[in-house]
Amino acid sequence: MRTLLVALAFLPLLATAQQPSLNLMPMPSTVQLGAGQLLIDRSFSVAVTGFHDASLDRGVQRFVAQVSAQTGIPFRPKPNAANPALTIHTDHNRDAVQKLGEDESYELEITAYAAKLTAPNPLGILRGLQTFLQLVQITPNGFAVPAVIIKDQPRFPWRGLLIDVSRHFIPLDVLKRNLDGMAAVKMNVLHWHLSDDQGFRVESRKFPKLHEMGSEGLYYTQDEIRDFIAYAHDRGIRVVPEFDIPGHSASWFVGYPELASGPGPYSLEGADTNSKFSPIMDPTQESTYKFLDKFIEETAKLFPDAYFHIGGDEVDGKQWDANPKIQSFIHAHGMKNNQDLQAYFNQRLEKIVSKHHKIMMGWDEILHPNLPKTIVVQSWRGQESLAKAAQQGYSGLLSFGYYLDLMWPAARHYAVDPMDTTKTGGAATLTPEEKNRILGGESCMWAEWVTPENIDSHIWPRNAAIAERLWSPPEVKDVDSMYSRLNAVSLELEWLGLTHRSARGHMLHRMAGTEDISALRVLADVVEPVKDYTRWDDSKGPIDFHAPLNRMIDAVYPESDTARQFGNVVQTYIQSGCKDKAAEEQIRTWLELWRDDDAKVRSLLEVSFLLQEVKPLSEDLAAVGTAGLLALNYLDKSEPSPEALRTMQLTLLDRASTRQADLFLMVVAPVEQLVKASAGPAQHN
Amino acid sequence: MRTLLVALAFLPLLATAQQPSLNLMPMPSTVQLGAGQLLIDRSFSVAVTGFHDASLDRGVQRFVAQVSAQTGIPFRPKPNAANPALTIHTDHNRDAVQKLGEDESYELEITAYAAKLTAPNPLGILRGLQTFLQLVQITPNGFAVPAVIIKDQPRFPWRGLLIDVSRHFIPLDVLKRNLDGMAAVKMNVLHWHLSDDQGFRVESRKFPKLHEMGSEGLYYTQDEIRDFIAYAHDRGIRVVPEFDIPGHSASWFVGYPELASGPGPYSLEGADTNSKFSPIMDPTQESTYKFLDKFIEETAKLFPDAYFHIGGDEVDGKQWDANPKIQSFIHAHGMKNNQDLQAYFNQRLEKIVSKHHKIMMGWDEILHPNLPKTIVVQSWRGQESLAKAAQQGYSGLLSFGYYLDLMWPAARHYAVDPMDTTKTGGAATLTPEEKNRILGGESCMWAEWVTPENIDSHIWPRNAAIAERLWSPPEVKDVDSMYSRLNAVSLELEWLGLTHRSARGHMLHRMAGTEDISALRVLADVVEPVKDYTRWDDSKGPIDFHAPLNRMIDAVYPESDTARQFGNVVQTYIQSGCKDKAAEEQIRTWLELWRDDDAKVRSLLEVSFLLQEVKPLSEDLAAVGTAGLLALNYLDKSEPSPEALRTMQLTLLDRASTRQADLFLMVVAPVEQLVKASAGPAQHN
Repeated sequence: MRTLLVALAFLPLLATAQQPSLNLMPMPSTVQLGAGQLLIDRSFSVAVTGFHDASLDRGVQRFVAQVSAQTGIPFRPKPNAANPALTIHTDHNRDAVQKLGEDESYELEITAYAAKLTAPNPLGILRGLQTFLQLVQITPNGFAVPAVIIKDQPRFPWRGLLIDVSRHFIPLDVLKRNLDGMAAVKMNVLHWHLSDDQGFRVESRKFPKLHEMGSEGLYYTQDEIRDFIAYAHDRGIRVVPEFDIPGHSASWFVGYPELASGPGPYSLEGADTNSKFSPIMDPTQESTYKFLDKFIEETAKLFPDAYFHIGGDEVDGKQWDANPKIQSFIHAHGMKNNQDLQAYFNQRLEKIVSKHHKIMMGWDEILHPNLPKTIVVQSWRGQESLAKAAQQGYSGLLSFGYYLDLMWPAARHYAVDPMDTTKTGGAATLTPEEKNRILGGESCMWAEWVTPENIDSHIWPRNAAIAERLWSPPEVKDVDSMYSRLNAVSLELEWLGLTHRSARGHMLHRMAGTEDISALRVLADVVEPVKDYTRWDDSKGPIDFHAPLNRMIDAVYPESDTARQFGNVVQTYIQSGCKDKAAEEQIRTWLELWRDDDAKVRSLLEVSFLLQEVKPLSEDLAAVGTAGLLALNYLDKSEPSPEALRTMQLTLLDRASTRQADLFLMVVAPVEQLVKASAGPAQHN
Repeated sequence: MRTLLVALAFLPLLATAQQPSLNLMPMPSTVQLGAGQLLIDRSFSVAVTGFHDASLDRGVQRFVAQVSAQTGIPFRPKPNAANPALTIHTDHNRDAVQKLGEDESYELEITAYAAKLTAPNPLGILRGLQTFLQLVQITPNGFAVPAVIIKDQPRFPWRGLLIDVSRHFIPLDVLKRNLDGMAAVKMNVLHWHLSDDQGFRVESRKFPKLHEMGSEGLYYTQDEIRDFIAYAHDRGIRVVPEFDIPGHSASWFVGYPELASGPGPYSLEGADTNSKFSPIMDPTQESTYKFLDKFIEETAKLFPDAYFHIGGDEVDGKQWDANPKIQSFIHAHGMKNNQDLQAYFNQRLEKIVSKHHKIMMGWDEILHPNLPKTIVVQSWRGQESLAKAAQQGYSGLLSFGYYLDLMWPAARHYAVDPMDTTKTGGAATLTPEEKNRILGGESCMWAEWVTPENIDSHIWPRNAAIAERLWSPPEVKDVDSMYSRLNAVSLELEWLGLTHRSARGHMLHRMAGTEDISALRVLADVVEPVKDYTRWDDSKGPIDFHAPLNRMIDAVYPESDTARQFGNVVQTYIQSGCKDKAAEEQIRTWLELWRDDDAKVRSLLEVSFLLQEVKPLSEDLAAVGTAGLLALNYLDKSEPSPEALRTMQLTLLDRASTRQADLFLMVVAPVEQLVKASAGPAQHN
């Protein structure tokens, strides 16, 4: 559209493994840094040439509104600006229903004078606009984007986030802001886990007792769902529904007990996967399939995506074992066990799903030779399971290693690659054709322990690291760079209205009942929730899904940035032979802060029933601070600390490293390193 | 509904001048503290007896949702709970259109076993529910409300907030959350300043060029307005529209230049009350009144409230002076000047407003003996002007002293009483009948310098202090108590979604471009914007209403809590003869924080064009910290500081107290006190 009159000296093309210091996440496949920058001021305007439609126009409007929000500049409508700062060009429309593998590539070229974004279709434009947004930065001369040439396309075509809305209902406004977050990091599938034991969340007009009796009034109407899918489509995100059967389906049986393999009656109250009560569909009666046929007919129309997820995981066969009619069905049909019965069920189900023009998806457990190769397997078991399916001809995607509810640090998720070639039985041995069957992955936000209030902080920013793993070239894996860019993307997500940072402040205010929570933040900054599935143990009986989630464990971030940074500084200090005085000063400042915090926070902890449980943690933090300072003093003087002192300190640190209030103090290990180092050079490990 | 079986020992009735330590704002007229508290746990439920309708039911639902948000307890629907924690009873409905003076009283009785809220109508119930919400607190045993008997009613029937949506358009979601804030502090009128020179914000179907050409596309549709009024009504808030004429009306003339007194053409670009261009309606032509008749006919139907505000302020007669036709009209009708012409205009206008069944309101300037006594005068000039109007038989309300855009501290607004009996010419000399004509007051959020992003922090929490002045007995005026309760109400407002605290963090992040803004917060905490109308001086020409409002002055709070608290501690310390060691320690901590902050923040200030202007402030803050610490050391040792040092320090402090980047460092004056005190006992003032 415009001719650039000035020749620019561009730096040589960089493979993104040598990541330039741009705060992009996911990192594009190629980034070529230029000279200079394009200022973004009040004259900023966007022109769209070539193809455009209402959806693309809305995308451009959102983009301009977002630049406005990030800069505080109130752009006014400038129809037909003569010299647009950014020209957007695409020639073709995208598909009316977004397809798996649809072209998402784009090219973004920014000079000091103008920017141009081109893509084969509007989907690539949407991705490129997100890259542009991440390039906006404040400089001494104004807001600007650097001169750059970016050519980008995703590594995997399926980059999803599963959100479970059954265990705790998540309202649409919360889901919508999470779609905005997904779009910001170029994820393209929302996997909507819509039914489980604890709730059936979709209005069914054919079987109204599903939502009326199975949701406690907390469900989405069909109109709301259509609106939501349109919202996702505008952002280049597919919505794949999951109705988990034949297990995880107690909520169906509250209204339709005749579907179950046991007599009932059923209620949501007792429903819990962890309890002994695991109701399950009866696959031996024809009426079950008639019901599912009608239900899937209705639902297939509501959800336009080509894929339909039937769950199929964790089928606990107790009801089948206990039902003589089902046992005789198994024997009469020459089946060996419950697994065979589930395979039979899935085979019948697949025919129904296909009849309604959908491709069936399910979890690992559905994999069975009698199912057609068109189905897609979602693996929670691992890359080996995925590779094995690919060898058998099945497409699949990875969720193993991407479970956000396990409270892992971002780096641990980041290290998980669907194509991991280091694992025995992983992708290394696959043929190119088989590799193509590995479609990507999905992070999973299972909702046992999240509410609308804290779900954002359980998804973000960690989910952005997974999004990068699925979009960027596999060579992009530097952890320090990832964390640095994760901080930037976290800030960007706040502008979208996500509450992953702000909700903690609200929750701490609630617990403290006072406005000044600075001392409480110091404590909250250095703890992390217990990991994996250890928050609950079965001996406590079933999880109470109506319990308030307003404790410290519910408020804190899954990962402590402070602890990670402190650990890094301690590393630097010890590796310098305890000579790096800047590092020492930083360590001392932190240790003093922790040593003194308990005195400041104690009065709060005493008046609040919600904070009383963290008193031992706060006391331990003070002790950890003191122990660290003692060690630091010896290290500073290059004088070995007395062994008796060290022994005492290590005992104390050992105690401080234990679980309390379902939390861990994450700064104990680095302080332990300091204490051990204070033994003197001979004892350095 | 329930009989209390346990007799409770109640403390004697307290006049609220002896304010109990409950975080209530506005303070109720009587509060009688009882013994014990009512726990709020998962069993909490509400029953409504007597009259109820959909609007009241929605109010109760909002209340329950709000208790749930504040406690984090997910209450589930409990129809017909046998032992409701709170019983609500009213016998009668309220008016379909809320009336001025409608009964808002209520009684709230809470024991350790149950609570009961009664009121003559649902309006009182809404007020009482807000009181209940403010009583919810965290305790060692759980969330609870204290046993209490409250009998409450407002002092004034008109307790309003004016929001100007013309100078900067404010979207409905922002206005709605401000309605929620108003309801929380029992305000009952939103005065919607809908048109001014810079924009006409209402869809007119009769005169579509008003909003099409006078708003840059930023206006409310009639459907949106109806929805908004219903939202306000549900919260017990009247919506009074203002269309400011014959001045402040340039936006009308963009589409309808024939209404103006000069030839035009007109555009929004040049429109500015501060410029020499002050277009004004032509009151001498019949077509003007025909237009206004049709316009008011349409608008009177859209806004159901009995009152209709026609502005009438600051009529700059330059266009009248310059128009020979208008001058000859003045002479032909025996008028003396432009004031007489405006009075003629208002008289004609009043007949039109009355014809459409509305009561006309206007600013001070409309007061003229030829207008009927039914009109209401809104005084920006002061209590004397209001009292004078009351003596002449006019009703009125006070806005003088309540202009939130002047950046005054809450205490200064709080001291302004519509009935101020200490002022000569104020309410002291009025008869009871005349006093009744003083209806209340309105705070004013004029929007020259606010955007949707920062308007909340310019209204809240200070507006709550004005709300208390208008609701509570005049004896409630202890400033320390007000500030302590203001902090609590500020927290409560955050739960309603107001961004008066959170927006600053976003804006600082934008300016800094980094995630860690803790050092920048230290600086932002101790500055305040320039006061009154000094941000702009006329020599700069007209205000640019499209300029970004993204500077430090736009981000900081109008009032520095830190500076006020620091000032108080310094007072305490000096009054103790510099012997209060706890106060000294607190002063020292703050001074050290300020002394060291510049070094931490400097690198941020250099890379950001928006922060460069605050570099001198940051340097001064460091110098102020150092000066204070020097003085404190002398005071600590009880040793007089050298005079030469003090002179140097005071010169430096004098410089630091000057305006920089349109901001003031608010901690200079207390440090000056320390420096002066360091001269030794003889020189103490």
